[in-house]
Amino acid sequence: MSYNILVAHGGGPTAVINSSLCGLIQAAKESGQVNKIFAARYGAEGILKNDLIELSNVSDSMIERLMNTPASAIGSCRRKLTEEDYPAVMECLKKNDIKAFFYNGGNDSMDTCNKINLISLKEGLDIRVVGIPKTIDNDLDITDHSPGYGSAARYAAISSAELALDAAALPIHVVVMELMGRNAGWITAAGAMASRLTGCNQLVYLPEQPVDMDKMLEDIENMYAKGKGLLVTVSEGLKGPNGKMLADTGIVDGFGHSVAGGTAEYISKQIMTELNIKSRSEKPGLLGRTSIPYRSQIDIEEAYRVGRSAFDYANSGLSGVMVAIRADRRGRYKSEMFPAKLSDVANVEKIFPVEWIDRGKIHDEFFNYVTPLIGENLPVYCDFKMY
Amino acid sequence: MSYNILVAHGGGPTAVINSSLCGLIQAAKESGQVNKIFAARYGAEGILKNDLIELSNVSDSMIERLMNTPASAIGSCRRKLTEEDYPAVMECLKKNDIKAFFYNGGNDSMDTCNKINLISLKEGLDIRVVGIPKTIDNDLDITDHSPGYGSAARYAAISSAELALDAAALPIHVVVMELMGRNAGWITAAGAMASRLTGCNQLVYLPEQPVDMDKMLEDIENMYAKGKGLLVTVSEGLKGPNGKMLADTGIVDGFGHSVAGGTAEYISKQIMTELNIKSRSEKPGLLGRTSIPYRSQIDIEEAYRVGRSAFDYANSGLSGVMVAIRADRRGRYKSEMFPAKLSDVANVEKIFPVEWIDRGKIHDEFFNYVTPLIGENLPVYCDFKMY
Repeated sequence: MSYNILVAHGGGPTAVINSSLCGLIQAAKESGQVNKIFAARYGAEGILKNDLIELSNVSDSMIERLMNTPASAIGSCRRKLTEEDYPAVMECLKKNDIKAFFYNGGNDSMDTCNKINLISLKEGLDIRVVGIPKTIDNDLDITDHSPGYGSAARYAAISSAELALDAAALPIHVVVMELMGRNAGWITAAGAMASRLTGCNQLVYLPEQPVDMDKMLEDIENMYAKGKGLLVTVSEGLKGPNGKMLADTGIVDGFGHSVAGGTAEYISKQIMTELNIKSRSEKPGLLGRTSIPYRSQIDIEEAYRVGRSAFDYANSGLSGVMVAIRADRRGRYKSEMFPAKLSDVANVEKIFPVEWIDRGKIHDEFFNYVTPLIGENLPVYCDFKMY
Repeated sequence: MSYNILVAHGGGPTAVINSSLCGLIQAAKESGQVNKIFAARYGAEGILKNDLIELSNVSDSMIERLMNTPASAIGSCRRKLTEEDYPAVMECLKKNDIKAFFYNGGNDSMDTCNKINLISLKEGLDIRVVGIPKTIDNDLDITDHSPGYGSAARYAAISSAELALDAAALPIHVVVMELMGRNAGWITAAGAMASRLTGCNQLVYLPEQPVDMDKMLEDIENMYAKGKGLLVTVSEGLKGPNGKMLADTGIVDGFGHSVAGGTAEYISKQIMTELNIKSRSEKPGLLGRTSIPYRSQIDIEEAYRVGRSAFDYANSGLSGVMVAIRADRRGRYKSEMFPAKLSDVANVEKIFPVEWIDRGKIHDEFFNYVTPLIGENLPVYCDFKMY
């Protein structure tokens, strides 16, 4: 039996989402059971418009390039499907004789995926629906972590270490760095690796713990007074005591989430005006999810395996599941994939444990969790005992 | 004859300034003619306070680590020496029996270097003074380019390409990226490689050409209307028709230069309020000069060779010179070092040729110049003919 498959991406890309796509396509080709491999152009938008790209005949070498291509090679969107959209979705699946549908995304996408599966079951269609996890924010539940997170964490860790060394080498200002994560501090916490890798002064603030600006400025002033420079690492979604983002743009995205912006710049200005200390802010923003050179090798490999597993699950008859990762941190890090029910994953947000944060510092539990995900070959810098 | 040498760093670090330090130290050690190798802790500040680090006995393996260490391993400062400072500088050189002094920096540092040489000559001191070029801004004259620029240019080129792909894959906003370069557009122009590497839509604005905001917004609106996303790359020092920076912080640094800030965010807000198009801004800032993974291999090697040449020049009796680079772009790129007079280099700013800029586009002449400096192994991405 030979059948057609469809894959779509939802939400923001990660540095390894194309690796999952590569794994899925290669597993499908190798199975010898797939006729046509379709990708929805720009995610749900492509499904709704029946705008598909056929990837079955793309050369193996071009597919292999997915492993080193940032963003999403098939496009994505932030459109959250509504009840009225589902008939068009099912129409597209039926029209193209799709027997396995793969949706690569985060919480919202898993919810969509779950609904498509329920409709298929209700309509008695023989379509297997499998979710492929992906989010730099690491806020998907059940899975130990999500592909994409390890690379975003490595970006945060190493670029923060580099910036901490710059701030220490030329200690003329407090450098404030903003990292992604509207509600979940997983990425920003990884930025706390900077002081561990360099010995430089650093303070870290996550969205899970609202900050008291006076205390924050007091801590900044005291640490900068040591004369060796200071890196302050903050989440884009950092909140004040009132629970509102420090730097709310007032803009709401397609999923109804508020858009954060300029948190580092806001704090940097506070440092200049309130403490009379020179400060500058850096906001790599999307670079943290799109950078190829900073990726974690573990993350690339897991993303690829998750893509392969997704195909294998569907091909073996599973449906209504998301590929999840079980991690083993005893000894050398290992992981294995297992199917998690989409209904258990959909719309649950895994937040960063607040007990791991303490006034600008992150506890060891987090580093035990994140270090293997960031991957090996952490940099070892020259150290003349300056800092 | 055995003698002592002193090296100091001035101004902002680059991603390869430590490679020049490595080259200098290794050449000095290998010569067998140097007794003590001193480094000034935090540049001119260390010289003025006679606060030196002795590097002669540091292990070879630690020195080798300099090749992969960001920022400045001996520290730097932005203090511009004044007439009253020079007696203390000469005192430090005499006290430590320094016979060769190396200053690694940009325009301001070469001016300092030149003055120290003139004072040495006037006082009849047998001190050789050699400048080592370094600036991400590429604004040093005489030399084809400065070590540090190639890596900053590669960072700009590749991270812009990655961001352009992200903007194209999820075309829900105009992404505005800010790159370093207060007065010189050399780095930002390298960011224009993004559209060449990806085929994505991009507009680029440099500080050498003041922008008319209405025309800029018109161009942005037209290009974004194509529906494939848009990356707008701007220099931090971008100016309006009145010659003032679009986003002046009002702050002046230790060298009397105005501090730029938030140019991308300013333009991003204009796009949202004037065009009613969603936009977000990214500002990697100092990450562009401190990132190790994005460095150019050519730049690393040239920085190392420049450090070695600096020692060789001093050891062979040259003084009052800066190591300059002569590039040969016929066939496979080659370069050689030559001594340039410090007096010819000091305080001359090499600006980006305005004729190479045209309403958001950069001419080919620039790419012929910059491509070899960015280095080989440019990424080749998977392309499903989406954009």
